[in-house]
Amino acid sequence: MFKLIHQDKNSGARLGKITTRHGEIETPCFMPVGTHGTIKGLYPKDVVEAGAQIMLANTYHLFLRPGMEVIRKAKGLHKFISWDKPILTDSGGYQIFSLALLRKLSDKGVEFQSHIDGCKHFLTPEDVLDIQRDLGSDIMMPLDECVHYPCTRTQAEMAMHRTINWAGRSCKHKNRLKEDNVNNRQFLFGIVQGATYEDLRNICVKELKDMDFDGYAIGGVSVGEPSNLIYNILGITAVLLPIEKPRYAMGIGYPQDILEAVERGIDMFDCVVPTRYGRNGTAFTSKGKVKIGNSPYLEDFKALDENCSCYTCRNFSRAYLRHLFNAREMLGLTLLSLHNVYFFLDLAGKIRKAIRDNCFSEFKKDFLNNYLIG
Amino acid sequence: MFKLIHQDKNSGARLGKITTRHGEIETPCFMPVGTHGTIKGLYPKDVVEAGAQIMLANTYHLFLRPGMEVIRKAKGLHKFISWDKPILTDSGGYQIFSLALLRKLSDKGVEFQSHIDGCKHFLTPEDVLDIQRDLGSDIMMPLDECVHYPCTRTQAEMAMHRTINWAGRSCKHKNRLKEDNVNNRQFLFGIVQGATYEDLRNICVKELKDMDFDGYAIGGVSVGEPSNLIYNILGITAVLLPIEKPRYAMGIGYPQDILEAVERGIDMFDCVVPTRYGRNGTAFTSKGKVKIGNSPYLEDFKALDENCSCYTCRNFSRAYLRHLFNAREMLGLTLLSLHNVYFFLDLAGKIRKAIRDNCFSEFKKDFLNNYLIG
Repeated sequence: MFKLIHQDKNSGARLGKITTRHGEIETPCFMPVGTHGTIKGLYPKDVVEAGAQIMLANTYHLFLRPGMEVIRKAKGLHKFISWDKPILTDSGGYQIFSLALLRKLSDKGVEFQSHIDGCKHFLTPEDVLDIQRDLGSDIMMPLDECVHYPCTRTQAEMAMHRTINWAGRSCKHKNRLKEDNVNNRQFLFGIVQGATYEDLRNICVKELKDMDFDGYAIGGVSVGEPSNLIYNILGITAVLLPIEKPRYAMGIGYPQDILEAVERGIDMFDCVVPTRYGRNGTAFTSKGKVKIGNSPYLEDFKALDENCSCYTCRNFSRAYLRHLFNAREMLGLTLLSLHNVYFFLDLAGKIRKAIRDNCFSEFKKDFLNNYLIG
Repeated sequence: MFKLIHQDKNSGARLGKITTRHGEIETPCFMPVGTHGTIKGLYPKDVVEAGAQIMLANTYHLFLRPGMEVIRKAKGLHKFISWDKPILTDSGGYQIFSLALLRKLSDKGVEFQSHIDGCKHFLTPEDVLDIQRDLGSDIMMPLDECVHYPCTRTQAEMAMHRTINWAGRSCKHKNRLKEDNVNNRQFLFGIVQGATYEDLRNICVKELKDMDFDGYAIGGVSVGEPSNLIYNILGITAVLLPIEKPRYAMGIGYPQDILEAVERGIDMFDCVVPTRYGRNGTAFTSKGKVKIGNSPYLEDFKALDENCSCYTCRNFSRAYLRHLFNAREMLGLTLLSLHNVYFFLDLAGKIRKAIRDNCFSEFKKDFLNNYLIG
């Protein structure tokens, strides 16, 4: 499934390739997020043209709406949403813990009420895989328990043990599904939990490695902790993971976070920020963020980012984008979202090139020298 | 400017071509409306790909926001909005009468307050042309007075006389501009008013014909009157107009209205319904309107319109579009808007083909037999 192509000489950065039944993904890769089966505001063709090789979709949202019966009848998520490249689906766990109402957790599984209509649901780790089998995603994630920052060591330990337990059950269930010949081309990743406790991360990795997942995700990062703690956890966890498997930092992140994570050996990223910021009128550029509604852009006829060759930057000025934003025109939000998605995908492409050319550290330094964080 | 290519043998329908400095427009044509300089929710490239040969932009909205200084500095509307095909701009009169606050009308011009910030403005017919010169539109419209339905004969007569007076001033002002060599490639249409009074329409046409405009618009239609009255006014006015000039029915209309108007010899149409209905979850199809949020579409995996080859219909099902609409995803609204704009442009293309093939009446009958109005 994963081929490690090249390791940077001066850092942990890796160049790789994941092969799925819906095509190849070069790593490090950025996965745009399509919560309800749509990368908000963008046509799938434009997301592909912007360079996306894989997208992420949220199991929790799709399970609740339109529901699995519709997606089964549509013959899976790819067909339903008209996306023929790879899809990674999360387990829904994170949304159950952050969005759903009245959740009750037990070793058996999780009970919750839909945030949409209040309907009660109960899902086991096995159910969560069955749902993802029906979604037909290329990469599935097992149910896990994610704790927020800060949390006590006891909380982190309990969540980690439950995560390991559920990972084991997920592995077994996946093998049963495989025997049924149902999902033998869907991959399953293990999720490392353990909060900010290095020894817990260590224990968790050891247990998960024994289960031999197709790849490993680092969960429970970017849940409220400061950046340096995120980078630290990613670094100490990545080095414990098997070299020959892809590594995915869940929910990471801003451009600077992605660079720090790649340097520490992470291969895959997803984040909602390109479209969320786009909808709120903020563009990511090589010089930092641009809040397009601001008055300095009233008569600024330059592109959002003069170094960018996305559709937005090739055709429209900051002055026009500001006008659209102030006139509350959808087009302003979709053009910013498209640019932002392109910016993140382009960053991933430049990172891959830098690793190939053995100059990742210089690239990172140059990028951060130009890029105003904040 | 206008070349009449073919007249239908069994009706008033005409096939023609308008040549502007931004390219040719085959008529009958449908002009998508870009109120703030954007056809709501759609990338210009997709509107062109859907078959648009010209768009309409609203002078009133652009004059107020972003304002003429920005557009002048951007070197005109085409550059500002990244649209290199022809643009028709209205005079702003209709919006002043329907949107602006505290308007005061005199023969000299119109005073009003912006509906955005309450600022006072005063515009003469000459000002309105100067604004359109700065916008750089290919077809300009003069300031006119449009009355709503119903209105008394006295009201209609006064508005018509003011419209004729302003048309004369606009003509003279345009000739002055021409001598200054400023806008010698912008066309100016005359607008026929006269409400539902046939003799007033007759007087107005006679006066405007003497001024020798580049084309003629029929205004004051679709302002609240029943459909048969609209068709009647279009019919009696069209036959009075010079054969060798293009005829434009302002703000028309629904598919059935366009067919009726073409049959009566109208060449140009504009309407906000494709995008307005799209944003509200309604699609136009060859069988009539589809309200995509309705429950019958929950598991309907067919295209919106199986006879349509737009991006939306080639790639997405009603079930997915319904899901997007119910999940309040922008993508649902943009996909419906794109389909609707394509549907109207495609209808215009089919009308042109039918006229060329001398079978417009059969085409109209077939279309309306399949199309459920309502």
